[in-house]
Amino acid sequence: MNDPQQGLDVLWIILCSGLVFLMQAGFLCLESGLTRRKNSINVAIKNLADFCLTTVVFWVVGFGLMFGASRNGWFGTSEYVLDFSLQSPFFSVFFLFQVMFCGAAVTIMSGAIAERMRFSSYLIVTVAVSALIYPSFGHWAWAGLNDGATNGWLNSMGFVDFAGSTVVHSVGGWMSLAVLLIIGPRRGRFAADGTPQKIHPSNLPLATLGTVLLFIGWLGFNGGSTLALNDQVANVLVNTVIAGSVGAISAGLLGYAIQNRLNVTQFMNGCLGGLVAVTANAFAVTTPVAALIGLVGGMIVIGVEELLEHYRIDDAVGAIPVHLGAGIWGTLAVGLYGDLNILGTGLTRLEQIGVQLLGVVVCGLWVFGVGYFLMKAVNRVYPLRVSAEHEDIGLNLAEHGEQEEHDIIWPDAEVVASTRDAE
Amino acid sequence: MNDPQQGLDVLWIILCSGLVFLMQAGFLCLESGLTRRKNSINVAIKNLADFCLTTVVFWVVGFGLMFGASRNGWFGTSEYVLDFSLQSPFFSVFFLFQVMFCGAAVTIMSGAIAERMRFSSYLIVTVAVSALIYPSFGHWAWAGLNDGATNGWLNSMGFVDFAGSTVVHSVGGWMSLAVLLIIGPRRGRFAADGTPQKIHPSNLPLATLGTVLLFIGWLGFNGGSTLALNDQVANVLVNTVIAGSVGAISAGLLGYAIQNRLNVTQFMNGCLGGLVAVTANAFAVTTPVAALIGLVGGMIVIGVEELLEHYRIDDAVGAIPVHLGAGIWGTLAVGLYGDLNILGTGLTRLEQIGVQLLGVVVCGLWVFGVGYFLMKAVNRVYPLRVSAEHEDIGLNLAEHGEQEEHDIIWPDAEVVASTRDAE
Amino acid sequence: MNDPQQGLDVLWIILCSGLVFLMQAGFLCLESGLTRRKNSINVAIKNLADFCLTTVVFWVVGFGLMFGASRNGWFGTSEYVLDFSLQSPFFSVFFLFQVMFCGAAVTIMSGAIAERMRFSSYLIVTVAVSALIYPSFGHWAWAGLNDGATNGWLNSMGFVDFAGSTVVHSVGGWMSLAVLLIIGPRRGRFAADGTPQKIHPSNLPLATLGTVLLFIGWLGFNGGSTLALNDQVANVLVNTVIAGSVGAISAGLLGYAIQNRLNVTQFMNGCLGGLVAVTANAFAVTTPVAALIGLVGGMIVIGVEELLEHYRIDDAVGAIPVHLGAGIWGTLAVGLYGDLNILGTGLTRLEQIGVQLLGVVVCGLWVFGVGYFLMKAVNRVYPLRVSAEHEDIGLNLAEHGEQEEHDIIWPDAEVVASTRDAE
Repeated sequence: MNDPQQGLDVLWIILCSGLVFLMQAGFLCLESGLTRRKNSINVAIKNLADFCLTTVVFWVVGFGLMFGASRNGWFGTSEYVLDFSLQSPFFSVFFLFQVMFCGAAVTIMSGAIAERMRFSSYLIVTVAVSALIYPSFGHWAWAGLNDGATNGWLNSMGFVDFAGSTVVHSVGGWMSLAVLLIIGPRRGRFAADGTPQKIHPSNLPLATLGTVLLFIGWLGFNGGSTLALNDQVANVLVNTVIAGSVGAISAGLLGYAIQNRLNVTQFMNGCLGGLVAVTANAFAVTTPVAALIGLVGGMIVIGVEELLEHYRIDDAVGAIPVHLGAGIWGTLAVGLYGDLNILGTGLTRLEQIGVQLLGVVVCGLWVFGVGYFLMKAVNRVYPLRVSAEHEDIGLNLAEHGEQEEHDIIWPDAEVVASTRDAE
Repeated sequence: MNDPQQGLDVLWIILCSGLVFLMQAGFLCLESGLTRRKNSINVAIKNLADFCLTTVVFWVVGFGLMFGASRNGWFGTSEYVLDFSLQSPFFSVFFLFQVMFCGAAVTIMSGAIAERMRFSSYLIVTVAVSALIYPSFGHWAWAGLNDGATNGWLNSMGFVDFAGSTVVHSVGGWMSLAVLLIIGPRRGRFAADGTPQKIHPSNLPLATLGTVLLFIGWLGFNGGSTLALNDQVANVLVNTVIAGSVGAISAGLLGYAIQNRLNVTQFMNGCLGGLVAVTANAFAVTTPVAALIGLVGGMIVIGVEELLEHYRIDDAVGAIPVHLGAGIWGTLAVGLYGDLNILGTGLTRLEQIGVQLLGVVVCGLWVFGVGYFLMKAVNRVYPLRVSAEHEDIGLNLAEHGEQEEHDIIWPDAEVVASTRDAE
Repeated sequence: MNDPQQGLDVLWIILCSGLVFLMQAGFLCLESGLTRRKNSINVAIKNLADFCLTTVVFWVVGFGLMFGASRNGWFGTSEYVLDFSLQSPFFSVFFLFQVMFCGAAVTIMSGAIAERMRFSSYLIVTVAVSALIYPSFGHWAWAGLNDGATNGWLNSMGFVDFAGSTVVHSVGGWMSLAVLLIIGPRRGRFAADGTPQKIHPSNLPLATLGTVLLFIGWLGFNGGSTLALNDQVANVLVNTVIAGSVGAISAGLLGYAIQNRLNVTQFMNGCLGGLVAVTANAFAVTTPVAALIGLVGGMIVIGVEELLEHYRIDDAVGAIPVHLGAGIWGTLAVGLYGDLNILGTGLTRLEQIGVQLLGVVVCGLWVFGVGYFLMKAVNRVYPLRVSAEHEDIGLNLAEHGEQEEHDIIWPDAEVVASTRDAE
């Protein structure tokens, strides 16, 4: 390294890349634990497969589109299929960090659409998001991030999204919504008269482990978004831990007030909601404000869950409440509570709130709009959803020809379960 | 950062905070794996819930009590509800690290008291420990730690507990004992004539994964307690790995000598015992001495296990043998083997042993004493233990209204199991 | 620390040691998930036990043999049973890193030979590998690594194996092969007429989690092998992530072409194959070449799997295809594609290819040769394999007297499963 500070920055980004990578393990545990055993293998392998595919696609196309030299703030025109052996250490670890971010945005979907989507279709969505949808919006909001420029058109208007409440989480959330509206709810999730029915998770301790791993990984997700080991890092980390903790407690208490017991899934999702909410603003708010942002984030998760159920949208793990609901809130909170000096956009508070709202709306229009019509088109020629029969058999067997020992010992158990669910 | 060394120190404490956070995942896996499936969700969510609650309580009350300006070495009077956006980076990451430590102290209990305690009661204990019991003793032993002062009354007498064999582990262990004496053993753990009966764990591979995660996290637990990336760190880490490994082997061999087979739970707990034992002294002993400390630590775990069973105290995961038994040993080992120059207390070896013993006794009196009477009082107005009926049904359903797919497919399996256990 | 760069290097090696430690958790999950429930505890505890035993043995014997002052490039003669409290920080963390590497080499075997080997025999193999087989070859290839010398005889001939495609992975693979040829396939793995039969894994989501943890840990495995936070690190990390991702995709596609579905185990092993393949050369190739190396690595995994099945060698988790197959390929790829200036051996490309081939052959002769005859000798006086009866009962119960709750609830389930497997 040329000088120690550069070494510290490189080491910091590597550490944070590893932590964000750990979130992939967290999502795997969370999603696999919250779904049924007959689909568990499919859910788990999707998390590894989308990461691997995203890495290659983002290297070939996405990174250039997102961080290449900007054409009028709309898309990048260089840095495609880079050879990193010729790049500076910092730029290479910046790529590493961004690959992990793209992987996170994609993986958010895998939980929402679980238990009914074809594996191959999911890979198509993965490519669409990592090659086009994510890096495009990412360019608008984050282009020039690595060299201190503000090249993206949203960015140059003053839109601030520190670690991606919108760029990563809302993108994943909107895309989930688009796909869910196309493929519909799981069989048995809503009775014929529309009454929601509980689909029981296979392994809640695994899901809780996933939540803890996600929480740990979030230290890197938010902490690394400074892109340097600077004086902001420590405050970012404290705010992250406080907001996640308060989010869990607020969702837990609200759930308790409604149901008179601690709903463990809501507690977990509240924690994640608090983390998503503080993601956009962790560098620019005080500790008490971070607690407030987490508090509201946890409550929003519960509210959006109710909303989805009301509209019979079947998000298998609560990805939309967590990543879209709390993501929008966190992005607006930048305008509401962010220290204007730290934001450094030169806008008044009202203008800042306005441009944050603009970013939220643009993200929705772009991701949901393009996502919905693209996937609708794909769905015509290549159905995204498995057949009803395959759904009943379970995706482990239907999609991967895979059975666990368990299925051999009690061959009829899953079928019994499916039938009960579907009744 | 002002200078590279400060940057290194901050980065080191952040890394170690992440590693100690990983111990939360380790405890979750260990405890959930060692208990029965009908309680597994309750056990898992307790690990997340106590962390989140501890974070908030420690921020509001505990941190100030423990590290605020000292009133005669007895309690801290400042630093409550701090806004860390106004603090130095080092102080903020110091808080982060200490939050994780407080979380560890609390989580130690969650395993011991598993499978019979009300979730809400557990939260009350969590608050008592993180707001009062842990930070008070912590102040006596560690106040001024962050700025090189020795403000706590035990600390200024020369009591040395490097990373918390007493401050963290024994506190967790004593508190576990206090609560266990109040709530009593699980139904079926001891027959009517007092004969101990095996309660079979649900998932030993998960418990083993938990042990490995704890071992990894311990690198941060001990390594970070230097509070700086200084020349002691490497020796601390080597001693930690050696003591943990030797502890596992010694407990394994001793168990083998008694039972003529490798008892896997004892092997795991021996590993943890070796780690707890070296925690107080890792910075001040040689590698061979660390091996000796681990060796004895592993054997103590087995001995205390026997003792608890003899007195019909039902520690569901062996938390007391590991954290209290080996914790006391490790604290005394500071006096027995610590390099007096490195300890730097100016005491003779005999005096050092004496003050270590004093610290051990004070911890027991304070934590067990206050813990027992406080919880006894709470227990009168708000019973800590679930009803026998709820215990038989399992805490997943009784406390959280939660069932896994498994319970739906084989609705009677758990009840059958409970009945067999209770017979 | 004396200067900031030394601090950065020490911190980097500590971080990477932690990451390689995480691979132990990854192997545990992968191997436990891919095997049957009746052996799951045995598989899991082996991963912890071999690490603990390796740590002690490597400290006492292995480290000195591998990195002590060289006797003519054949073996080390100093640094046995070191007291690291007297060593420099860098040298101590170098030991820490090397302990983790030795642990990885040993653990590779534990998966291959799962479900039929006595626990005590496995510990004998562990000692043989960590005290003699691994550190001897390691000396030839890596002696002087830590101080920039090239003392090992293979090393001084110009053999380059950056992070151990041969030194670690092939050693584990060859040793697995040697032991497998002695103990033979699991009962029921091949029918009487030799037809291979599927033995169903117990928990594929856990195995997938293991793969993700291994992938994360590999950042440290390869990244830390620079032994300094230098300008090569970033390129190494990018190459690692790209090769692992491409390996998964290539194995997945090849498997799909053959079986018309995504075989999840092949996808996971392809990922690991890509990672093993890039391990020897990550510092000396460009990003596109890393992709190519991963591509071939993934395909080799599938090919070697077929080969093993053809010869009725029963590798329970695919350790030989991954670690030996891709390990040989990666070592040769150093000669084929490595930048000769970066390699810095002064050899022509053809000479470099020759010496890489020599290293591969020497590794095979030494590890397989010594391993086979040593274990054959042990097998005469102390059979490595459990009895057929114990194999049917399962190693959990037979070796550790351990049953999970599950076995109590459905006492006959495992036996039923065994019988079906054996039919």
